[in-house]
Amino acid sequence: MPLSVLILGSGSALPTLNSNQSAQLVETESELYLIDCGEGTQIELRRRKVRIQRINHIFISHLHGDHFFGLVGLMSTLHLLGRTKDLHIHAPKGLEEIIRIQFRDAGSHLSYQTFFHEMNGSNQLIHEDKNVQVRSLPLKHRIPTFGFLFKEQQKDRKLDPEALKEYKVPNFARKAISKGEDYTNEEGKVIANEKLSFPLEAPVQYAYCSDTAYSEELLQLLPEVELLYHESTFLEKDRERASKTYHSTAKDAARIANLSGAKKLLLGHFSNRYKSRESFLKEARPIFPDSYIAEEGERYIVGA
Amino acid sequence: MPLSVLILGSGSALPTLNSNQSAQLVETESELYLIDCGEGTQIELRRRKVRIQRINHIFISHLHGDHFFGLVGLMSTLHLLGRTKDLHIHAPKGLEEIIRIQFRDAGSHLSYQTFFHEMNGSNQLIHEDKNVQVRSLPLKHRIPTFGFLFKEQQKDRKLDPEALKEYKVPNFARKAISKGEDYTNEEGKVIANEKLSFPLEAPVQYAYCSDTAYSEELLQLLPEVELLYHESTFLEKDRERASKTYHSTAKDAARIANLSGAKKLLLGHFSNRYKSRESFLKEARPIFPDSYIAEEGERYIVGA
Repeated sequence: MPLSVLILGSGSALPTLNSNQSAQLVETESELYLIDCGEGTQIELRRRKVRIQRINHIFISHLHGDHFFGLVGLMSTLHLLGRTKDLHIHAPKGLEEIIRIQFRDAGSHLSYQTFFHEMNGSNQLIHEDKNVQVRSLPLKHRIPTFGFLFKEQQKDRKLDPEALKEYKVPNFARKAISKGEDYTNEEGKVIANEKLSFPLEAPVQYAYCSDTAYSEELLQLLPEVELLYHESTFLEKDRERASKTYHSTAKDAARIANLSGAKKLLLGHFSNRYKSRESFLKEARPIFPDSYIAEEGERYIVGA
Repeated sequence: MPLSVLILGSGSALPTLNSNQSAQLVETESELYLIDCGEGTQIELRRRKVRIQRINHIFISHLHGDHFFGLVGLMSTLHLLGRTKDLHIHAPKGLEEIIRIQFRDAGSHLSYQTFFHEMNGSNQLIHEDKNVQVRSLPLKHRIPTFGFLFKEQQKDRKLDPEALKEYKVPNFARKAISKGEDYTNEEGKVIANEKLSFPLEAPVQYAYCSDTAYSEELLQLLPEVELLYHESTFLEKDRERASKTYHSTAKDAARIANLSGAKKLLLGHFSNRYKSRESFLKEARPIFPDSYIAEEGERYIVGA
């Protein structure tokens, strides 16, 4: 299963009947990762039939409520459903206290252990497992805020069964070939790895950048990702408001996508002052043609 | 406009796609009062087209999350929409800290003042204005929990225009008559109040009792109300679970309605383990015929 992103909420601070606060699910074959968790995220996860107990790591970009007000409720539900697996929460300083006093006052002893990992800076390896590496990205907002860079782990090479047969490769030698090694046969002849395995697919990368003002500092750490989610709370006509609140316009997001060499841009975190979301595309596409609106309930395959 | 209650959520701890966590709106002619505020309450208020800035008093029964996780989000929205009026929150000890640290860490300075009023015991007059008196009721739960008794203020007597004419009552004397006084005319003759005004309608009362185990202690303070909302998380077949978690069954709720002399019972706070809500009525009605299911989005007139 390729790396993919399910949009649970693409609105900004004011939730409406059609638009949820920030939340996304990054999906791999064996693990689910939640990024941000606005109010009502657990309902949206239920609507999308997500198996929530498969989430072991939650990444919270910053402590504005539209990015975490739904976390305590989701954690409560995981508990009521009898979770026993550890839960890891990666967030800026402060969230642990907020969550713990709520369970303390409720007299709740969670059925599982919770580990809060405080994010202190950007370009840190926040998490790594067999599926992904996650690094923090520097965002420019009113309070400490981090983006997230998800990078697939390099997978093993797929072996070519025809070639294995032709070169009479024994079973014990296959693992090393899948890791990229050449094969030396009984007669001492070296068979190059590329003759025995298919070309590697490069690991794909996904970057989540919300909330942030336009910031070229981000470019120093943002590689050429297959998919970039960059907030565009405002349109250029509200540039002043964007600057004042440390948010971006659709044009800002397109510029970052363009300068960073991203393959595809997802726009999100829309202010509900705009009736239509088409205007965001009109502003972004002249600068970065592969711009799209992050639609709630839609799943985007990274690299597709 | 008569006192009425709009049900925003009648589910219990686990929110589902069809059932919200606890929240109700008590409506009078000029004021709205919110009781409890589970996650997503602000969305439900929006769905029901409630003018949320008319809410000045919020009553939180206890600090289990399904009764308050939506409060911080609602408060944030009131702020983003530019509220300037004071907001009063009546709740057990602990809520103020939970709310304040979340706004502190967000760097938010609310556009309005918030006053937390700590509830320390039952039978206290928590709030009084020209529309209602609100008193705390003793509930029996795992943590400090209070019910709420809303009593309409006695309205002025309505004057009988025919009688005013007949007895030649001057304008300046009318206010005193509307307050219940007799009228003494220029010749010193006393005209009894009941000849000049219509019979008073007795103020109606609404009691909210959630969450609680069956508790006859409640009966000492629960008058004969026109409408009683009493939780019925469980059915009798799950009596053991009800006892263990300090919740009631539908039968418990019906007994309280019956013993207290309530006119009508609304059942709510249903566990989502039950497919149908009809079973709650089947259990309650043999004991208290005027039992009803609290339907989300429905408005119940107190005394109708």
